[in-house]
Amino acid sequence: MTRRGEFELIADVFGPLANDPSALNLGDDGAIVLTREGMDLVVTTDAMVEGIHFAADFPPSLLAQKLLRSNLSDLAAMGADPSAYTLTVALPSPPLEGWIEKFAQGLGRDQDRYGLALIGGDTVAATGDHDKWFSVTMFGHVETGDALRRSGARVGDTVYVSATIGDAMIGFDIAQGNLSQTKLASLDADSVGFLLNRFRLPSPRVKMGRCLHGLATAAVDISDGLVADLGHICEQSGVGAEIWADQVPMSGAAANAVALDPDFAQRRLIWGEDYELVFTANPAFQEQIDQLSQRLGTGITQIGRITKDQIVRVNDHYGQAILFESEGFQHF
Amino acid sequence: MTRRGEFELIADVFGPLANDPSALNLGDDGAIVLTREGMDLVVTTDAMVEGIHFAADFPPSLLAQKLLRSNLSDLAAMGADPSAYTLTVALPSPPLEGWIEKFAQGLGRDQDRYGLALIGGDTVAATGDHDKWFSVTMFGHVETGDALRRSGARVGDTVYVSATIGDAMIGFDIAQGNLSQTKLASLDADSVGFLLNRFRLPSPRVKMGRCLHGLATAAVDISDGLVADLGHICEQSGVGAEIWADQVPMSGAAANAVALDPDFAQRRLIWGEDYELVFTANPAFQEQIDQLSQRLGTGITQIGRITKDQIVRVNDHYGQAILFESEGFQHF
Repeated sequence: MTRRGEFELIADVFGPLANDPSALNLGDDGAIVLTREGMDLVVTTDAMVEGIHFAADFPPSLLAQKLLRSNLSDLAAMGADPSAYTLTVALPSPPLEGWIEKFAQGLGRDQDRYGLALIGGDTVAATGDHDKWFSVTMFGHVETGDALRRSGARVGDTVYVSATIGDAMIGFDIAQGNLSQTKLASLDADSVGFLLNRFRLPSPRVKMGRCLHGLATAAVDISDGLVADLGHICEQSGVGAEIWADQVPMSGAAANAVALDPDFAQRRLIWGEDYELVFTANPAFQEQIDQLSQRLGTGITQIGRITKDQIVRVNDHYGQAILFESEGFQHF
Repeated sequence: MTRRGEFELIADVFGPLANDPSALNLGDDGAIVLTREGMDLVVTTDAMVEGIHFAADFPPSLLAQKLLRSNLSDLAAMGADPSAYTLTVALPSPPLEGWIEKFAQGLGRDQDRYGLALIGGDTVAATGDHDKWFSVTMFGHVETGDALRRSGARVGDTVYVSATIGDAMIGFDIAQGNLSQTKLASLDADSVGFLLNRFRLPSPRVKMGRCLHGLATAAVDISDGLVADLGHICEQSGVGAEIWADQVPMSGAAANAVALDPDFAQRRLIWGEDYELVFTANPAFQEQIDQLSQRLGTGITQIGRITKDQIVRVNDHYGQAILFESEGFQHF
């Protein structure tokens, strides 16, 4: 599992993160994953590649947190309680001064926040100078048989989404300099800060996922785009969906940006990285879902309903179908 | 976990490999890892990068098998029974025609052979044209508390190694064209075939690892080199070791190569990728270990003993210490 040369680096930098007996101090060929009586063990894997998922100058501590959070978001969509992860790291050799230490700080911060322990991994040399990549496998627990699935949506179910959609997309455009100087100057500093933060540091809806047992019939997290990810639910459930574009919740900051660039309003429906949850539930549970939203302090909004015909139809203000050139992120 | 665009590829090529209910047909954000009553769940992670761990022209089906087998070897060193794995794949976009299909064939072959199921993963685009990488996280089961560790070696224990050491190194030199034409021409075809095969397709000692409970005090697999990996046992156990270079078993094919290039004899002690097991045991178990070797049809050879002083000393034929410039693979 570990190889000489990298060994000291792992011991020094990652050792303190392996703060769980199951990690066997990263000193063995493997680790022991703690299982819990009466609970299923959920596993998820998500990778990030420089130049595809993040820019070379993305701050290492935030990158570490975003990497963990993209996996946490998958666990949230399964309704699981996160517990541990393994990490594969590829870095150019020799690594940039201080980079890995800052990366480890980010890991440590979110380990504390989400109750995670690093229990193993592998460190390898990347072949290019600007070629970092990371793969995380994360473990979580859910009451036996209770994992949220993509396959349970039924015709007539309401489609819900957590918080607001599109912030990450606009934050990305700001970070990349895709917004003209004039437009950027017209946007207030608070909005800019909020949108950048939503892109850099998503908020996986772990608590919400844990509370959806018995309410949601199907759930998925938005990593590829609202339309594409809802499409995954429809495909697995053998149903279709109708979304009302106007009803898809927008933050105040995003609304300020849309005022400057109206294209954002529709594009956000097919842009990923929001890491919000989309889920379906029987309309009879509306009151419980409102109460859950209040209790968590996170919006949960009705945005559509599950239909028979196996497509995802997005309707505009006039009930006309919106057609998209692409339905979501094309990573491959 | 999955992203649009790659989705069809995953469904078509990897779908049939997810032949276990716990994979949830790769249709969800995660999978459920099957746990077994009275067993610990062992997890291990190993990655391979083009240009570092394999050449661009390495056959894809063999690469898939080698990737699984390097992880199987880690499970063997823990004494665990393999059951499932997740896979992260990065390939240049668009992927080479037929490459991924052949890669999947190799996975399928070893899934059958070792009783494995693919239960999840991630597919991402690599940034460079010649930039493939893979990370596998593999699961296995071992009776609760019985995992073989690196930390149990005691002064006076015998050091054992499985099968033969150095074949992979010579096979690598042959594959890379590092052996002069004259020398290669002097080596018989059977030896060349054997050595190449030992490099391309290691034999993880899974059954042996399963049988070492109650016999071995510590175990590790040789991925970094005999001296370095035995060093990991010593470090974790707070002991040292003495190896008798002459006693380290050599295949007939390797002996033929050593006759042509005597340097191989010592270099094989610090070269990795043999994926054999090194383990320590109380001398009282010699008879049981001999019987195990006979039963498995795989050699298990005494190569040294555990000492007090915390270094790994390698003695030559005359009892003189051999000094190495480097103790093992420097991957980073």
